[in-house]
Amino acid sequence: MNCFVMRPVERAQLAMMLEVTAYPKPGNVDRCHDYPETRLEHFLASTIFARAAFEEAESGKGRIGEIIGHAVRDTSCHAGGNTHFGAFILLVPLLYGKDIPGAIAAVSKTDTSDAVAFYKAFALTSVKMNETDELDVNDPGAIAAIRDRDMTLLDIMQHSAANDMVAREWVTGFRLVRRGADLLKELGPGRQSVVDAFLTLLATEPDTFIIKKHGIDIARETMLRARDVLDGKLSIKQLDEDCIQRDINPGSTADIIIAAIYIALGEGWSWDS
Amino acid sequence: MNCFVMRPVERAQLAMMLEVTAYPKPGNVDRCHDYPETRLEHFLASTIFARAAFEEAESGKGRIGEIIGHAVRDTSCHAGGNTHFGAFILLVPLLYGKDIPGAIAAVSKTDTSDAVAFYKAFALTSVKMNETDELDVNDPGAIAAIRDRDMTLLDIMQHSAANDMVAREWVTGFRLVRRGADLLKELGPGRQSVVDAFLTLLATEPDTFIIKKHGIDIARETMLRARDVLDGKLSIKQLDEDCIQRDINPGSTADIIIAAIYIALGEGWSWDS
Repeated sequence: MNCFVMRPVERAQLAMMLEVTAYPKPGNVDRCHDYPETRLEHFLASTIFARAAFEEAESGKGRIGEIIGHAVRDTSCHAGGNTHFGAFILLVPLLYGKDIPGAIAAVSKTDTSDAVAFYKAFALTSVKMNETDELDVNDPGAIAAIRDRDMTLLDIMQHSAANDMVAREWVTGFRLVRRGADLLKELGPGRQSVVDAFLTLLATEPDTFIIKKHGIDIARETMLRARDVLDGKLSIKQLDEDCIQRDINPGSTADIIIAAIYIALGEGWSWDS
Repeated sequence: MNCFVMRPVERAQLAMMLEVTAYPKPGNVDRCHDYPETRLEHFLASTIFARAAFEEAESGKGRIGEIIGHAVRDTSCHAGGNTHFGAFILLVPLLYGKDIPGAIAAVSKTDTSDAVAFYKAFALTSVKMNETDELDVNDPGAIAAIRDRDMTLLDIMQHSAANDMVAREWVTGFRLVRRGADLLKELGPGRQSVVDAFLTLLATEPDTFIIKKHGIDIARETMLRARDVLDGKLSIKQLDEDCIQRDINPGSTADIIIAAIYIALGEGWSWDS
């Protein structure tokens, strides 16, 4: 029988599925852990509902800011709220451009209309900007400011890069996505590699979602504890339980891992061992 | 914001996802239990990979036997093997006909070409026919016999109905699917209802997948034990553990529940409470 060959859209959906089911994943929703309001099923429903926007991105037509908006719109209607905003910021240009060089080219072509569409999508989510941020999404003046300054979506990401590791990917050429994909390929096939790649990134990069919620000290402590797990000094289940209890969830690292799985799958890494 | 309205294909995919993640589900793969060879991720990957065949079915064009074949082909390429053959036998006509009356009309229009295509799909799976079955899928003569007798796919299902509760749905007007959908609506919104509807069907209908594997006595015993759980005399976790240990998996009941979720979602039942 001829084997099923995944389209890029299916690689993106599979990446979302494999990330959320990987277990145990310290602090995040995983196979055996829900948040009170956002459950495994919400993440998996988003995986299904993102299809149309992913097809739009895969076609390489249309505007990236608008397509991110469509993905957020189509996946925010369940009671779980926003599940994958950060992942879409990465997956949409990667689908649009086919691979990392293509995504770098695609983000460089964004304009003010992308920035405005992105801000409108942002307003649909409950993601918080930094309090000091002058381009506050809750401020109707922000869109006017973007237009006045003629900012592109890449400019917005540049503006956010210091405080947001997902935005930073746009301006560093998807550096951590590349590293995550390389890690997966080094670690070998199968789901344990997703957990191990996640832990390795967590041990080496402060998660900006944790920083926004709890500050840099807690983010650094989480890095050190992830390192302890890698060094065999702490069990991953213990770290998971501690993170859950203290509401520490490395959500941005999860977004990077999703995009890394997407890239690795396209380069022959096998999820299915 | 305008809320995302699911297409029938997305209802079918969501139904597959909600069934496999429902927990605990005695004996079957669920959120916290894999089979050694077939894991949660295989079932969820099939949910993603079935999309193209579901779109074909949703279009209401083409031949049902062939579309079931496409669904089986596209979801059998992972190491988990066949995950949803029975579910596709139900979902494809339901998508094709939009609802149960439409599906009844659709299956009545199948012909010998559907039967042949179905047998070819069947050969891709590891599903066992009854040993006494003269239309053995491993027998190359079977397809010739189907052509000689001018059997339609509905005839094949009629032929299999006594021993297979999924095939029986085609000839009884999707009676258990209807009952399962009604149960879900009575039980109310949310994932616990999937578990409860599953248990209720298991307590009232002998699962033919269990019969094929272990015989009617074990299937009847499983029904009584499911009844004990409903009556509060046995914990569902205990039943789950016993079934897993004895390799008793009510796979046909799971297929019926998937189709029931698909119908219930289309009639306003909410998965997301």
